[in-house]
Amino acid sequence: MKLRYTLFVGLAVSSIALAQGDDARKAIDALNRQFITACQNMDHHASAALWADDGVDLLPGNAPLIGKAKISAWLDSLTPQLQGGKMMYCTVDWQDIRIHGDVAYEWGINRQKIEFPPPKKAFEGEGKILLILKRQADGSWKIALESWTSK
Amino acid sequence: MKLRYTLFVGLAVSSIALAQGDDARKAIDALNRQFITACQNMDHHASAALWADDGVDLLPGNAPLIGKAKISAWLDSLTPQLQGGKMMYCTVDWQDIRIHGDVAYEWGINRQKIEFPPPKKAFEGEGKILLILKRQADGSWKIALESWTSK
Repeated sequence: MKLRYTLFVGLAVSSIALAQGDDARKAIDALNRQFITACQNMDHHASAALWADDGVDLLPGNAPLIGKAKISAWLDSLTPQLQGGKMMYCTVDWQDIRIHGDVAYEWGINRQKIEFPPPKKAFEGEGKILLILKRQADGSWKIALESWTSK
Repeated sequence: MKLRYTLFVGLAVSSIALAQGDDARKAIDALNRQFITACQNMDHHASAALWADDGVDLLPGNAPLIGKAKISAWLDSLTPQLQGGKMMYCTVDWQDIRIHGDVAYEWGINRQKIEFPPPKKAFEGEGKILLILKRQADGSWKIALESWTSK
C-alpha cells in the first residue's frame, strides 16, 4: 500500500513538473515570437514591454543598460536613425533553450537587415544572442538579461 | 503541538535553504577566484577545467564554441601568440550575482592587459562578461555559458 501510494505521489509530482515545464516552454516560445515580431516591425514599445523591470542589456559599444527604463530610452533613441528604414528581415535561429524552474536561458544566431532610401546604405547585422528569462511574480516570463556578441 | 511542529519544520527548511544558498555563493566566489587566477597566470589548462562538459562560449569574432573540448582547443590555440607575453592585470568587477537553485548567473566588467617584448604592442581589452554557472552532478559548480561583449 505504501509503495502504491509512493508511486502515485511520485507520478503525480512528475506529471505536475512536466506540465509546468511544458507551460514554461510554451510561454518562452510565445515570448520569442513576440521578440521577433517587435524587431521585424521596429516596434520599440513592443520590444521594451518584453523586459523585466530590473533587466540588464549588454550590447557591443554600449555601457551596460540597467533597468527597463534605461533599455526603453535606448530603444527610443534609435528611432531618428531608423527614419525611412525598412526591416528586410530580423531572425533568431535559437540553438539551445534550457529551463530551470523559474529561470531559463537560450542562445542563437541573430540576423537582421534594414534598407534605407538611397544614398543611405543598408544596415546588416549578424551576431550571437543570449537571453536569460525569468518568470515574474504575475506568472509572465520576461527578459532578465541580454548579451549580444558580434559575429 | 501541531503549530510548534510546523514552525520547527518551517524553520528547519528555511535554514537548509539558507545554508544551501550560502554554500552556493561560497562555491561561486571560489570559482570566480579560480577564473581570475587562471587568467592572470595565462593558465589555459586551469581555465578549461572550470567549464562544464556541455559549456558554450560566445566570443566576438568567433563562431560559437560548443563543448569543453572545443573551448579547451581554442584556449590552447592562443598559446603561440601569447609567447613572451606578460599578463599585467586580468580583473572582473562583478556587478551582479544571482543564484536560482542549481543555476546562477553573473555579469561584470572584465579588463586585461598583456605586455610583450618590443616591438610587439601590448594587448588591452575591456568588455562586459556574462557567465551562467551550473551545479554539476558531483556538486561542483562549472561554467555552462560565457558571453563576452566589447566595451
